[in-house]
Amino acid sequence: MIRAGVVGASGLAGGDLIRLITQHPDLELTFLGGSSNIGRRPAELHPGLRLDLGLTVQPVTEDIADLVDVVFLATPAPVSAELAALLADRVPAVVDLSGAFRIRTPELHDRWYPKVKRRTDLADRFVYGVPELIGDQLADAALISLPGCYATAITLGLAPLTLGLGLGLKTVVVDGKSGSSGGGLQLRTPDLHPLRNGAIAPYSPTGHRHAAEVGDFLDRAKSGTVGSLSMSAYGVSHVRGLLTSSYVFTDEPVDQRELQRAYVRFYKDHRFVRVRRHAETLIPVPDPQAVLGSNYCDVTVLRDEDQRAGGRIVVLAALDNLVKGAAGQAVQAVNLRFGLPEEAGLTMQPVMPA
Amino acid sequence: MIRAGVVGASGLAGGDLIRLITQHPDLELTFLGGSSNIGRRPAELHPGLRLDLGLTVQPVTEDIADLVDVVFLATPAPVSAELAALLADRVPAVVDLSGAFRIRTPELHDRWYPKVKRRTDLADRFVYGVPELIGDQLADAALISLPGCYATAITLGLAPLTLGLGLGLKTVVVDGKSGSSGGGLQLRTPDLHPLRNGAIAPYSPTGHRHAAEVGDFLDRAKSGTVGSLSMSAYGVSHVRGLLTSSYVFTDEPVDQRELQRAYVRFYKDHRFVRVRRHAETLIPVPDPQAVLGSNYCDVTVLRDEDQRAGGRIVVLAALDNLVKGAAGQAVQAVNLRFGLPEEAGLTMQPVMPA
Amino acid sequence: MIRAGVVGASGLAGGDLIRLITQHPDLELTFLGGSSNIGRRPAELHPGLRLDLGLTVQPVTEDIADLVDVVFLATPAPVSAELAALLADRVPAVVDLSGAFRIRTPELHDRWYPKVKRRTDLADRFVYGVPELIGDQLADAALISLPGCYATAITLGLAPLTLGLGLGLKTVVVDGKSGSSGGGLQLRTPDLHPLRNGAIAPYSPTGHRHAAEVGDFLDRAKSGTVGSLSMSAYGVSHVRGLLTSSYVFTDEPVDQRELQRAYVRFYKDHRFVRVRRHAETLIPVPDPQAVLGSNYCDVTVLRDEDQRAGGRIVVLAALDNLVKGAAGQAVQAVNLRFGLPEEAGLTMQPVMPA
Amino acid sequence: MIRAGVVGASGLAGGDLIRLITQHPDLELTFLGGSSNIGRRPAELHPGLRLDLGLTVQPVTEDIADLVDVVFLATPAPVSAELAALLADRVPAVVDLSGAFRIRTPELHDRWYPKVKRRTDLADRFVYGVPELIGDQLADAALISLPGCYATAITLGLAPLTLGLGLGLKTVVVDGKSGSSGGGLQLRTPDLHPLRNGAIAPYSPTGHRHAAEVGDFLDRAKSGTVGSLSMSAYGVSHVRGLLTSSYVFTDEPVDQRELQRAYVRFYKDHRFVRVRRHAETLIPVPDPQAVLGSNYCDVTVLRDEDQRAGGRIVVLAALDNLVKGAAGQAVQAVNLRFGLPEEAGLTMQPVMPA
Repeated sequence: MIRAGVVGASGLAGGDLIRLITQHPDLELTFLGGSSNIGRRPAELHPGLRLDLGLTVQPVTEDIADLVDVVFLATPAPVSAELAALLADRVPAVVDLSGAFRIRTPELHDRWYPKVKRRTDLADRFVYGVPELIGDQLADAALISLPGCYATAITLGLAPLTLGLGLGLKTVVVDGKSGSSGGGLQLRTPDLHPLRNGAIAPYSPTGHRHAAEVGDFLDRAKSGTVGSLSMSAYGVSHVRGLLTSSYVFTDEPVDQRELQRAYVRFYKDHRFVRVRRHAETLIPVPDPQAVLGSNYCDVTVLRDEDQRAGGRIVVLAALDNLVKGAAGQAVQAVNLRFGLPEEAGLTMQPVMPA
Repeated sequence: MIRAGVVGASGLAGGDLIRLITQHPDLELTFLGGSSNIGRRPAELHPGLRLDLGLTVQPVTEDIADLVDVVFLATPAPVSAELAALLADRVPAVVDLSGAFRIRTPELHDRWYPKVKRRTDLADRFVYGVPELIGDQLADAALISLPGCYATAITLGLAPLTLGLGLGLKTVVVDGKSGSSGGGLQLRTPDLHPLRNGAIAPYSPTGHRHAAEVGDFLDRAKSGTVGSLSMSAYGVSHVRGLLTSSYVFTDEPVDQRELQRAYVRFYKDHRFVRVRRHAETLIPVPDPQAVLGSNYCDVTVLRDEDQRAGGRIVVLAALDNLVKGAAGQAVQAVNLRFGLPEEAGLTMQPVMPA
Repeated sequence: MIRAGVVGASGLAGGDLIRLITQHPDLELTFLGGSSNIGRRPAELHPGLRLDLGLTVQPVTEDIADLVDVVFLATPAPVSAELAALLADRVPAVVDLSGAFRIRTPELHDRWYPKVKRRTDLADRFVYGVPELIGDQLADAALISLPGCYATAITLGLAPLTLGLGLGLKTVVVDGKSGSSGGGLQLRTPDLHPLRNGAIAPYSPTGHRHAAEVGDFLDRAKSGTVGSLSMSAYGVSHVRGLLTSSYVFTDEPVDQRELQRAYVRFYKDHRFVRVRRHAETLIPVPDPQAVLGSNYCDVTVLRDEDQRAGGRIVVLAALDNLVKGAAGQAVQAVNLRFGLPEEAGLTMQPVMPA
Repeated sequence: MIRAGVVGASGLAGGDLIRLITQHPDLELTFLGGSSNIGRRPAELHPGLRLDLGLTVQPVTEDIADLVDVVFLATPAPVSAELAALLADRVPAVVDLSGAFRIRTPELHDRWYPKVKRRTDLADRFVYGVPELIGDQLADAALISLPGCYATAITLGLAPLTLGLGLGLKTVVVDGKSGSSGGGLQLRTPDLHPLRNGAIAPYSPTGHRHAAEVGDFLDRAKSGTVGSLSMSAYGVSHVRGLLTSSYVFTDEPVDQRELQRAYVRFYKDHRFVRVRRHAETLIPVPDPQAVLGSNYCDVTVLRDEDQRAGGRIVVLAALDNLVKGAAGQAVQAVNLRFGLPEEAGLTMQPVMPA
């Protein structure tokens, strides 16, 4: 059994990490860390969890190296930056779910994360990316940084165009729609149920940093290019799951058949990405409700055939922001890191309808 | 009192028409028409309505000309096409809420409404548009066609750019998000609560005809031009209200200050359009929950200042799809048609939170 | 015009008071009071409200007597107790929406509101009750206390049994179900959207003080008696509106026909209470969605005919907790106080569906 | 591997059976049956399911005996009655999720299921009950009938009082609150999202047959007695999960401490029933959101200490109606039938928040 610790145990991603680790055949939960709720049991913080987990939340010190083989950091970026420095070289594997180590280009990092001071030497050692796209680098990685929920969906949606077909993307406009769990459990008035329910909240109409993270990642890849890239993000009236719509204008025209084939081919060995035709089920897909609680990302690509659409390509990607967008993806990365089957502990099917 | 009839009394727009007319100081509800639910009382069909309305649903014949000064057609487009032919020249004013008479260019109409046969001579007599933009034509109009809910929001959002600033819009990508009431009360499996709640349903990822209607309308205006125009529409997990996001790339650059001023100026005499800064309230606006039940359309314009955004302009418009997007707008048009104050019967404030 | 002030302008009931007063033909909003958000405009606090209301939130002093004919206190009970002492005899009418002055029996008050110190002499001068049941006392009342949202529904539901039929109610068990707006906008973790949405939260399974308020009120009436009376309250997954289910076992048997007649008779002159048969519309009623935004309370009474049910009577009452359960009822009381038509400013019909 | 067939594969319970069986280490899905959707793949009917399940829906004939060791009937009661007659003695185990074989007393069955004709000889061979309460009878059962979702929750809530403490329950009033998935996917207008969302729908204010099923079961047990028993059921505004509130008046008084101990003792060997104190977590429990997707039933018992409450005991029970209330419970019964660990394939933890 691989011994796993979760830091940030009180948060939503922390809760799902505990859920997934305790369901995992090869991982054992041996440490729960946090700065608040010290001494509390998981079921007090996450009422759904099993009542008999023996651990309580504890502060993080370098002594945890004796307790764990891997540490998941489900902490805010500034905390992750600190903890990574503390734990690197002490713990065999550190997996950071925050934005602290996502952007490689230093100026870009500083622009989008001005408050997150990280040691550059440490940053350069982090492997970053969606596991499907960086699988080979994970095998021996000691430090792993994972994209955020939106960036995961956007990247998985665009990768077959750039990395697969090698297309130049002249203009990409991303519209992201997320349930309220994406914002965590901070006490903020707009997130109270009376104000958040029924809302279509344009909380980030411009300047969402996940767009920058996607851009930085794709720019550093060898094939394809991305020109203008912008994003707007909206909170909609449910809790778990997000959908990203990437509206793409390419340098070269490409037809629906070619697109569909390219997507299927690109993901044929990746069971967590399901390429779905728009009309194959009793509801329109992709829809995040069809991946709820699972590690799937459902992707659909459509060429807009309308004469006036300017050759627009619509790429839709749906995932559970707390699983494939956070905890599940982190477990997936750890599976690859420790040579386990990629799907170990992640075979749960979506709970639908919910 | 102006005597008003509502046809399509069983539907959601019909219900809101009854609600608004019975609250209106100068309108009197004198006829309820429909093809189903003959003989039923309004409160059976719309459980919220006052119980003491004397009318029941009746079939429409030309005899209704004796009963009404104005007829609202809240009927499907093919039915509206028929009824308009029956009622034109018999009733002083016919207001159609369907798509039957929206598109002026015949080829475009046939492409987007292939099943709606309309008499061209009749079609040419219809005045069409958002009341704010065609007010002067309404004063003596006998036949009025109103844009759909999405088209109203998109048009009000874009008009200050094209009609106001005279800008050329090179590329417009519209992302529309709507509650479930936009789909009416037809019995379709994906609209059942277990499948529709919690959904982000990409029900019209390409080819939404409201985009064509907006394009046709703006093309026929004198100033500004619109190049590529495309739309994707999504159902999200609430009932009433929609938000349209128009992502615009212009021929000429324009800055935030100029945009804000142009919007305020354009709508300074139109009390139903509220130009709002993004961060002026305790929740991010515009959000359809802040217009619920009212005839307001809240509009926000933002220039995306990110270096990589390609000069994108984000135009957000929120409205209640059954009020400003249907019944309320129809009453507003009738007010202008009969020389009443534009806001007569439409002074109800949003019910928020709901 | 009657000049009205609202204290507690930042809260949800305060917001609906502003909404209703600005729609009222005979009331004029002349003062907004509060202890927080001083200087802010209404639309900043309630994004749905008209943008052009001239007032800002101000501290309450005795000087407001010059500005108002009536003051609505939409404040917590301890604050109401203080402000009532300040404003009584200075302002012609004070209407308190809190629990500070609801319970007449001193020991009962102290048991349920141990932290609310009130002057007994002042308390005795308050007229308390649902307007439908105390209309004659309101005509010259200087101090008015109104029941809470649950208590209004329960009392309107039970009154025809006790005050109308003069029945003895041996056992009454109340199950109350409310949307999240009943809890206001305080920052509490369980009220965050991710935790409140999808919940059936048993937040007050025993010991809800509205039951005590109902009991105290009915006990002091002349006819009928109430024996055991208990209540449980639940938060369910919507925002506005509540339903109370009162399960009643009477001393004497009474059949469905008699019940229905008694309810219709009892409320025949009260337009805001609609006695509805269970199956008269396309949805089961009463349902709070059918009264949303309006001042209606829909009531249904059913005798449980099952052999094993023990003669149970089921009384259902639905209302909008912020309107008939708070702001609307307060306006209704003021209408009666100042000799206006009871429904002045309260003729808005329910916004449904929403 | 035990070969399992699911009939009624298109419905919601059918979908969850497929989900759970494909996650089960010892069950293999070998047949999908139904009367509609013949030839369709599971993922077309249940968009969340794995795309690579080889089966399609087929009609049920006696030939399926060759394909399966156990058949789950997730069919309407009349269909179950027929299929049970067809499959009994041909298939080693038949598990019926419908009401066809729940009520043992013939007159009671006929009163509550007048349209379900069943062969009495067959009916008498069915083992019926919540697995926790009839575990020993399941070991060699060929025919198994399981309680419905509400009845499971009510029975698990009351059993420690009657079967555990042997108390006489003078009066039991049950108030059941359920999400919309309890009503399945039939096309009915009140279940459309615009009408069902935001509702508190009193769809069964009297005469719910689950109350009769609970009564019949408890009456046939050896200890405790149940006097008057009645139920009201409401649809609330979420999808998955229900809460039952049983308001109990006992012959003998019993205090909180005794109650709590009795419940803990009664369920100490049953991992799927979690006895929870009301205030032990960050949200009030029990709440169905804390069991979503899992086979848990959370139970809380509270004595109402208010002087006027008449000694009322409040028993709350929350479960996922499609898992512990249907598919999960059926798998649990099959585990016990085939000598597998009770929790085999049912170790998934709740997905919360969702």
